[in-house]
Amino acid sequence: MKIAPGPADGARFASAWSDLATVGRDQQRGGYSRHAFDDAEMAMRSWFVEQAERRGLQVEVDRNANIWAWWGTPGPGALVTGSHLDSVPGGGAFDGPLGVVSSLLAIDELRVRGFVPSRPIALVCFVEEEGGRFGLPCLGSRLMTGVADADQVRRLHDPDGVNVADAARRVGIDPERFGPDPERVAMIDAFVELHVEQGRLLHAADPSAAVAVGSQIDAHGRWRFTFTGEGNHAGTTRPADRRDPMIPAAATVLAARRALVDHPDAVATVGRIVPNPGGTNVIAGSVDLWLDARVATSEATIAVVDAITAAARLEAEAEECTVVLRRESFSEQVIFDPNLGLQCAQILEAPMIGTGAGHDAGVLAPFLPTAMIFVRNPTGVSHSPAEHAEIADCVAGIGALADVLGRAGQADGDSRAVTP
Amino acid sequence: MKIAPGPADGARFASAWSDLATVGRDQQRGGYSRHAFDDAEMAMRSWFVEQAERRGLQVEVDRNANIWAWWGTPGPGALVTGSHLDSVPGGGAFDGPLGVVSSLLAIDELRVRGFVPSRPIALVCFVEEEGGRFGLPCLGSRLMTGVADADQVRRLHDPDGVNVADAARRVGIDPERFGPDPERVAMIDAFVELHVEQGRLLHAADPSAAVAVGSQIDAHGRWRFTFTGEGNHAGTTRPADRRDPMIPAAATVLAARRALVDHPDAVATVGRIVPNPGGTNVIAGSVDLWLDARVATSEATIAVVDAITAAARLEAEAEECTVVLRRESFSEQVIFDPNLGLQCAQILEAPMIGTGAGHDAGVLAPFLPTAMIFVRNPTGVSHSPAEHAEIADCVAGIGALADVLGRAGQADGDSRAVTP
Repeated sequence: MKIAPGPADGARFASAWSDLATVGRDQQRGGYSRHAFDDAEMAMRSWFVEQAERRGLQVEVDRNANIWAWWGTPGPGALVTGSHLDSVPGGGAFDGPLGVVSSLLAIDELRVRGFVPSRPIALVCFVEEEGGRFGLPCLGSRLMTGVADADQVRRLHDPDGVNVADAARRVGIDPERFGPDPERVAMIDAFVELHVEQGRLLHAADPSAAVAVGSQIDAHGRWRFTFTGEGNHAGTTRPADRRDPMIPAAATVLAARRALVDHPDAVATVGRIVPNPGGTNVIAGSVDLWLDARVATSEATIAVVDAITAAARLEAEAEECTVVLRRESFSEQVIFDPNLGLQCAQILEAPMIGTGAGHDAGVLAPFLPTAMIFVRNPTGVSHSPAEHAEIADCVAGIGALADVLGRAGQADGDSRAVTP
Repeated sequence: MKIAPGPADGARFASAWSDLATVGRDQQRGGYSRHAFDDAEMAMRSWFVEQAERRGLQVEVDRNANIWAWWGTPGPGALVTGSHLDSVPGGGAFDGPLGVVSSLLAIDELRVRGFVPSRPIALVCFVEEEGGRFGLPCLGSRLMTGVADADQVRRLHDPDGVNVADAARRVGIDPERFGPDPERVAMIDAFVELHVEQGRLLHAADPSAAVAVGSQIDAHGRWRFTFTGEGNHAGTTRPADRRDPMIPAAATVLAARRALVDHPDAVATVGRIVPNPGGTNVIAGSVDLWLDARVATSEATIAVVDAITAAARLEAEAEECTVVLRRESFSEQVIFDPNLGLQCAQILEAPMIGTGAGHDAGVLAPFLPTAMIFVRNPTGVSHSPAEHAEIADCVAGIGALADVLGRAGQADGDSRAVTP
């Protein structure tokens, strides 16, 4: 069944948006928890497939479980847009789904405008962009490009010990098919991802602008510190007899903040810490702590992490604990295709801004021209239930995406017209 | 079916002990996780009931879900022993179950000795001694004595948000019956709890002794600190714009350690910390942290907690966060009945030692004469999978418990002969 396309307006956006309002609510944390292959994310995927099929788009799931919906015959020269459906634990409504919903409504908008594409256009939903369940962000795009090794990915596990392979099988996805998909990557001439902004650089660049175009993504990564001491009874173990891994772990949280004094352009965060066993009356035997660090360049990021690691080692030694450091992910700085970005900025008369947030567009950037459109976030708050964007700005974002797709999609046989 | 009683020996102990070896294994943390009304604890309860019935003991479950097994007609003048079946998360095998298993085998031993009790003897399993699921230790004994309010207990909830009332109902226990049980308390003339030692004071007092008798329990309590800041994106929020509750939480962990410099007799521990939402790439919106603090006297304990709280408030303010402090439990210092203790020590020719660990015997102590028998723990490690006691020492503990029950249970009509 096809539905009549309509112009992007507040009512149409609100209607589509309300479909997702109740999917994956996190009663404990607030906001949403939608993670790869869980019930909430599967409901989101079903919703997308239904919406795409209603619009007469041809839906397929690639070997890495990313969903594609094609307007026109799938094939080379494709212009692709989309984002992700998953969230961080207790995240906001916009991060990810805004790009997916906007891609569907941009197709409607283009049809209202009478646009007929001269090249294939595809909408894509990438799997586990946040890494909220299995720890590795941009799982789907990393697998597709071969940046992540499929064997290693299959063995990643969630906090309950369920690995990626079993989680995928549970929902009928064959994890043995995971792996690089160079033919698919080669089909894509350009990828444009719309996303809610996750800061207030847009406001700083132009307080009157509802959208901006992305210029670069800071280098960023995740490091897991495992401090090991000796589990024991909290009531009967004298301070001198303790080897409590919570002590160096706590000191490392503070070291991460202190490191920013010497690195004023960096951010470093500990948002996740898990003592084992985690009992109130128990000295932990070990503590896992995750550090998220980002600075514009890879070298600067590594310098910050090195400073924090040095502090962690000293603190662990002082408590007679050990510390093991594992890098769970690392992304070099991404400079989005300057020509494509500049053209988007000209089409939209929008400012260009960088970001500290990682995106699938960043993973794809070394392989093909990519661009991002950011929608204004009045408070800048993201990864939080308080994340927000105004409906009028979301509608402006849909219009902007339609403008860019329309210009690029009508490129009259020259499939790289806006992606030189 | 009755089983032939046998003398306490290593083979009989090992056989009973092996029944429990696989119940409630924690695959993630190591050791055991057995918590009130969960599958593991229910399996432990069933095992105890079966063992008691095999011995011809009369089993009843009191209004607070504690299990009683009577040798002789239930009634006043009772001599009671027992302990608990639950564990801390990822705890050892001995803390709790050793006292229960020993109570059953002490009955066997007394029968082999031809002992005929002249007063009722009961074995008891108290519910949720560790507070590992619902946060309040000694739940069963606190309810029975009225130290904990039943309405408040019913509303306590586990980390998954399941409250005590619903958890009880799920396993067929009526939470509406929870409440003080003064008739039952009045029935008990003396309570003797056998427990693995959770430190090495026994070794210090007498390196050749396998058991000791308890003299006192330090005052101890649990305090929950909730730090609230502003949840946000770890990659895009500048340090100056952050209100990260992990910062004061980490500083409070270190303040708890520092406070012990001024209070050398105290212990203070943070073994549990939960950032919300707990994502790697998310600045937490709030952090819950639990402090366990213990010193001999109540005044000294409060002084330590006050010092840590003052530091927590300063650190929260510096990060523009708020902090709310809630006392989840508090137990005054317990001095066990000195006459009963001295008599036990004389019967057993054992040293007397104090402890920093809380016990149901401590909750009962203000209401009736109580004593504890501690079994040697060679490393002192407890609340850990590494917790250990030698079989020979466990057998010695069973013998000691039989000695004490035998002397007190034959008290020739004078039910207070060893409990003046």
